[in-house]
Amino acid sequence: MMVFDYLRNLGNQEHPQVLLITVFVAILCLCLIIGHLLEENRWVNESITAILTGCIAGTVILFLSKGKSSHILTFNEELFFIYLLPPIIFNAGFQVKKKQFFQNFLTIMFFGVFGVFISAVVITAGSWWLFPKLGFVGLTAREYLAIGTIFSSTDTVCTLQVLHQDETPLLYSLVFGEGVVNDATSVVLFNAIQKLDVSRVDGKIVLHVIGDFFYLFLTSTALGVIAGLVAAYILKTLYFGRHSSIREISLMILIAYLSYMLAELLQLSGILTVFFCGILMSHYAWHDVTDSSRITTRHVFATMSFIAETFIFLYVGMDALDIEKWKMTKLSFGTLMAIYSTLIFLILLGRAAFVFPLSALSNYLNRKAERTEVITFKHQIIIWWAGLMRGAVSIALAFKQFTYSGVTWDPVSATMITNTIIVVLFSTLVFGFITKPLINYLIPHHETIKIRHGESAVPKDDLNVPLLSFEESTATNIGRAKDSLSLLIERPISTIHSYWRKFDDSYMRPIFGGPVTNQSQC
Amino acid sequence: MMVFDYLRNLGNQEHPQVLLITVFVAILCLCLIIGHLLEENRWVNESITAILTGCIAGTVILFLSKGKSSHILTFNEELFFIYLLPPIIFNAGFQVKKKQFFQNFLTIMFFGVFGVFISAVVITAGSWWLFPKLGFVGLTAREYLAIGTIFSSTDTVCTLQVLHQDETPLLYSLVFGEGVVNDATSVVLFNAIQKLDVSRVDGKIVLHVIGDFFYLFLTSTALGVIAGLVAAYILKTLYFGRHSSIREISLMILIAYLSYMLAELLQLSGILTVFFCGILMSHYAWHDVTDSSRITTRHVFATMSFIAETFIFLYVGMDALDIEKWKMTKLSFGTLMAIYSTLIFLILLGRAAFVFPLSALSNYLNRKAERTEVITFKHQIIIWWAGLMRGAVSIALAFKQFTYSGVTWDPVSATMITNTIIVVLFSTLVFGFITKPLINYLIPHHETIKIRHGESAVPKDDLNVPLLSFEESTATNIGRAKDSLSLLIERPISTIHSYWRKFDDSYMRPIFGGPVTNQSQC
Repeated sequence: MMVFDYLRNLGNQEHPQVLLITVFVAILCLCLIIGHLLEENRWVNESITAILTGCIAGTVILFLSKGKSSHILTFNEELFFIYLLPPIIFNAGFQVKKKQFFQNFLTIMFFGVFGVFISAVVITAGSWWLFPKLGFVGLTAREYLAIGTIFSSTDTVCTLQVLHQDETPLLYSLVFGEGVVNDATSVVLFNAIQKLDVSRVDGKIVLHVIGDFFYLFLTSTALGVIAGLVAAYILKTLYFGRHSSIREISLMILIAYLSYMLAELLQLSGILTVFFCGILMSHYAWHDVTDSSRITTRHVFATMSFIAETFIFLYVGMDALDIEKWKMTKLSFGTLMAIYSTLIFLILLGRAAFVFPLSALSNYLNRKAERTEVITFKHQIIIWWAGLMRGAVSIALAFKQFTYSGVTWDPVSATMITNTIIVVLFSTLVFGFITKPLINYLIPHHETIKIRHGESAVPKDDLNVPLLSFEESTATNIGRAKDSLSLLIERPISTIHSYWRKFDDSYMRPIFGGPVTNQSQC
Repeated sequence: MMVFDYLRNLGNQEHPQVLLITVFVAILCLCLIIGHLLEENRWVNESITAILTGCIAGTVILFLSKGKSSHILTFNEELFFIYLLPPIIFNAGFQVKKKQFFQNFLTIMFFGVFGVFISAVVITAGSWWLFPKLGFVGLTAREYLAIGTIFSSTDTVCTLQVLHQDETPLLYSLVFGEGVVNDATSVVLFNAIQKLDVSRVDGKIVLHVIGDFFYLFLTSTALGVIAGLVAAYILKTLYFGRHSSIREISLMILIAYLSYMLAELLQLSGILTVFFCGILMSHYAWHDVTDSSRITTRHVFATMSFIAETFIFLYVGMDALDIEKWKMTKLSFGTLMAIYSTLIFLILLGRAAFVFPLSALSNYLNRKAERTEVITFKHQIIIWWAGLMRGAVSIALAFKQFTYSGVTWDPVSATMITNTIIVVLFSTLVFGFITKPLINYLIPHHETIKIRHGESAVPKDDLNVPLLSFEESTATNIGRAKDSLSLLIERPISTIHSYWRKFDDSYMRPIFGGPVTNQSQC
């Protein structure tokens, strides 16, 4: 107690922020070390470690401050959307295996776009019908729509920590791709609902929302692609490495961030923009820089993403003990438990409502393609389960909907905030705990080769090989693409892919950089 | 005009910050590219490029906003001291050639500590005497003392960009070392003056301030050393690289930052702490991590420092057009010019007052040591000139003294802010412009081997060799240290150095990491 008071007095004297940052960074270090020590454990992953560390730290602070400071920082959506989310999404785009991603593009879009719509409808309808029956009233139509979106945004970080890109490539790329597209879709959909005039909803307005959505989707993607190409062009033309690799690294980081901010400024989806900027940068710009810059950028983007993720989970864990909001809720313990159970049930249902039908549809559409791998029922269960976790995006959207700068005095809004926190904690901890054993049970050949988990998996001499390459199947694809028209109908994705490869080698790579593959066999 | 209004309206809708960040990051990118294109130019360096870009950007914004927004961001001392300064100073410690630094430790301390005291006394006395004669009245005794400190803090970044560590090692280590110690000294001294009860200054209080100063100096250094050792011990013991090099990199960044914040929290000098933390980390912790982590950390620390520096100079350039403060000044143009000239003259005088005497003292004390290189008169002129630039620390301290959160309504305070900005601009631009030709004139053999300027100078196969090594002269030092007592008196520094080497090899390196040198010859 003494120590805390002493530190707080010290901290108050000049910059109140200093104490907060010190405590937070210290906990972050602690969390990192605990995460490392628990690495071998089969039940626990990064997210769970961070959330639990956050909860414990929150409890300790609550006691030390004698119940006054329940949390050291209120959730700040600006911090989240402006500083923490961009590095995570950019790194996702930068490290994604592009070949897998584009081969499964259609299925990923089904899950990531239509899936969110279906899930949001199920959750909105379900809560609209069930909440009043449980005695929880006072939500407006717009708020019900927002709830549908908030609880449809998945957090796939947990699952990706147990899936391996090399062992289950199809599954990995579906879960990963869906995660990214889902994040973008739910944020865009949420913003569309904010602008919606709910008093006069008709077919025309629904069409308008959908039209808006696709417009945003395309323009955001285009902006990201342009930003990536501009970065590649500048790096290739000016060849900074001649003088210093520091400028190359700075420029890559700054342009990536600029693309995100520009998208936000133009009210597009920064998430989509920075994701595609990451893909383009790893495909072109990454080949234009010096060797040290390649090693550095790859590690530094992963590190920034890792710190941001840990930060968010820690934050969510600490925020769970926001007792002021707990006190504000006027409902009984029984009612609250019923609401939590309802929400969890609706999340399970809403996800099942699109994973199984859309998987079947994807298998049907791919029946003639050369992709021999179908999405088996076991895979479908894993995909369903992988998207059950709710994370930081849900929290951020809930704070945006139900608070004003993190503060609310309305009991109904406070209840919805605590609901969201409980659902996030429950889904991350309970569903997250079960994920590893579940995957091990369903895919028994999935061996936990621990050494391949982290960055050290990459062979040391592999550093000059393009990180993410299309190369492997180029020759086969091009060879098969002879009778192009009939193929375009039968196997649209792979045919487009082989045309793209030719175009890329002939026009794009000479301008923007990257190794040109041997064309002699065409 | 239309575009700016449009963008501003867009920006205002959700997060006003988004527009600011976008514009700032865009200008930062631009500045980076311009800096690269001007690399070959012999007159211009990074700081000048950034300041001029900032001024131009500020002017453009001033016109676009029809004179309303003179600057997009007010100088925020919290941003500066909490986020921008730590990476710069940490990188300085991390990349310093430790051997040179410690061999010249005494001289560096003379310049960096006593130099600031002497210069501050000269500037305080001079302005106290001259300002009222020029018709500029209204400053309190405390403010005159603050002015002395504000204009004694140097900015050696400019000069270091033209000096080369390999060509003029003595000069480089003196200028560099002084720069770091000077930053720390002026901040500590400034804080001491803030707490001083100026109404009853006597010898006892002056002694008290000096005592305080050395207490702060020692405790801050100790904290930095402890933080560096803790980081090395954790990295060596837990060997994170086994799982992922991302954790290693994160932990190094976080512990470095934590040491700075902890020092600030305990009201020590964060600058000194993080500087010594950087030295210790590069000496021990850097050897405990994987190869990719070594390359990454070295580049990433340099990149963070580079971005922070560019950011600061850009900021200073943009801030120069803060017309509200210009309007507030009640003095005539002639008086203002007289004040600027006086300040510039006092800076020249204050620095001459310690560089030449202390250089002579250093040469006298080193007359018996094996350091054959004395500080020649030409070197003294370069050292004198190198410290004439005033930079971001001056600005930050001036804002701390004369504004309340960047805002002031007092004409005298507003005048001092604009004085500081003008002195910083003038010294960086004019003195900075002359530095390169001056050094080339004084040291003609100083060849501008451009390729060695940046990071690419490091041979690619050199990456496993310790970045900064004591090794070279170990054998010679130990060989010479036979008749130790007489040597300790004659050549204290090198004798202490050789004892330290033995201790380091036998006890420190086995615990904290680093290559153990071959001891067979002892």
